[in-house]
Amino acid sequence: MTSDKINRIVILGSGNLATPLAKSLKLAGLEIIQIYGRTEKQAKILANRLNTNYTNDLSLINPKADLYILCLSDDALLEAIGKIKLKDPFIVHTSGTTPINIFGNKFSDYGVFYPLQTFSKEKEIDFINIPLCIEANTANNEERLLTLAQKISKNVLPINSDQRKILHIGAVFASNFTNYLYSISKELLAEHNLSFNLLKPLIQESALKILDNHPEDAQTGPARRGDDQVIEKHLHHLKKHPEYKNIYKLFSKLIKDKYADQ
Amino acid sequence: MTSDKINRIVILGSGNLATPLAKSLKLAGLEIIQIYGRTEKQAKILANRLNTNYTNDLSLINPKADLYILCLSDDALLEAIGKIKLKDPFIVHTSGTTPINIFGNKFSDYGVFYPLQTFSKEKEIDFINIPLCIEANTANNEERLLTLAQKISKNVLPINSDQRKILHIGAVFASNFTNYLYSISKELLAEHNLSFNLLKPLIQESALKILDNHPEDAQTGPARRGDDQVIEKHLHHLKKHPEYKNIYKLFSKLIKDKYADQ
Repeated sequence: MTSDKINRIVILGSGNLATPLAKSLKLAGLEIIQIYGRTEKQAKILANRLNTNYTNDLSLINPKADLYILCLSDDALLEAIGKIKLKDPFIVHTSGTTPINIFGNKFSDYGVFYPLQTFSKEKEIDFINIPLCIEANTANNEERLLTLAQKISKNVLPINSDQRKILHIGAVFASNFTNYLYSISKELLAEHNLSFNLLKPLIQESALKILDNHPEDAQTGPARRGDDQVIEKHLHHLKKHPEYKNIYKLFSKLIKDKYADQ
Repeated sequence: MTSDKINRIVILGSGNLATPLAKSLKLAGLEIIQIYGRTEKQAKILANRLNTNYTNDLSLINPKADLYILCLSDDALLEAIGKIKLKDPFIVHTSGTTPINIFGNKFSDYGVFYPLQTFSKEKEIDFINIPLCIEANTANNEERLLTLAQKISKNVLPINSDQRKILHIGAVFASNFTNYLYSISKELLAEHNLSFNLLKPLIQESALKILDNHPEDAQTGPARRGDDQVIEKHLHHLKKHPEYKNIYKLFSKLIKDKYADQ
């Protein structure tokens, strides 16, 4: 049985997501009563920043919270759920990929609280614009999570497990793979003693462009123009990097095909 | 023979680059005395915005400019250079890929004025932070171009033809291919009635992150964590899109390999 209003929260995790999430919740007036971390050191660092308690022992989780938020990697998540001994907790995970029914056999109040963003411990981030994707096992629990989420973000929405999986896949393409392309470009420049700083205005502008334009309309470059001469020259220059050459070939073909009729 | 100070400029081109460049130069106090466009319509639109003259006939280019800036696609560039009948002009192109010696047989004062950015006619852009990569056939001409470029940007640097080619390849990875990844994510979301707007905060943050972090350090996601279970689930979901599945597989493998020792 759970009370309706969420005030007291335990955060399970002390990493890239746990850190900014716990801070945002505390700033919004919620009480973070405990941090659980797999190592005492990490748990302590975050707990000290929040002036709260910590543990690295799942059997010592404070049983008096209104909500338990699991900010753990997908592997650690399953293990933690197995080991938690709380009586009737309201418990949520924050994973893009894990379905809600991972809780179903063990708990009766549960849900998902998935922030669609990339997090680093070092980088401060405001939750106000981050889409918070909410799912819960009952309408009442969904309502409680939506109310909580709206205290830290103006971009809160109910999303089911199938939709969340698609959002996660979209995020991998739009963020993780994009960042990897940044790495490639940095490496290519470095080989010729050119600073990655030179590409930063371009990277920012490319991201800003899609705020007001469809990415289909924002597409530029040799493949978009069907400029085979430039493509061939670039491929020739990439011969030292067969894997980057592969990426260049694959993307150029797909972009050319996409715009072939235009 | 050319005079030293650049005041009067003819812009050859009326497209994505010509439009913002001509506007920036005029705002900085330069005189845009003529626009050449391949079609009269396009040339007229830009000329009207700048309150200047236009032509669509290369034989009618005004011979009295201090500088001719070719803002043409690589194909059109070669053709235009062949047809230009000017006597001893100071002439530059704006291409990332075309070497400076494309001018060598015909002209005696020439160079390259390459802005490292993605341009759209519709989107206003300030040149102030755009890297302007300058190359010229003599030290004096280089100096003249650097002085001109510094009137519109605080990010001006001499770059030779080999370096410029690498910058262009880097830009294709960091901007063109990145934008294509945005398109893929949009398409995947749309198939499940999810708005691309949901990914926009993530896309912005991913670009902002690399201003203060190396992209190697900013890498997140299932492949970075070596989370094969999530990768397999995502690949399964992409089975309707073999080409996107290929990209997912290729990137995940390369990212996993890159971080295998960490």
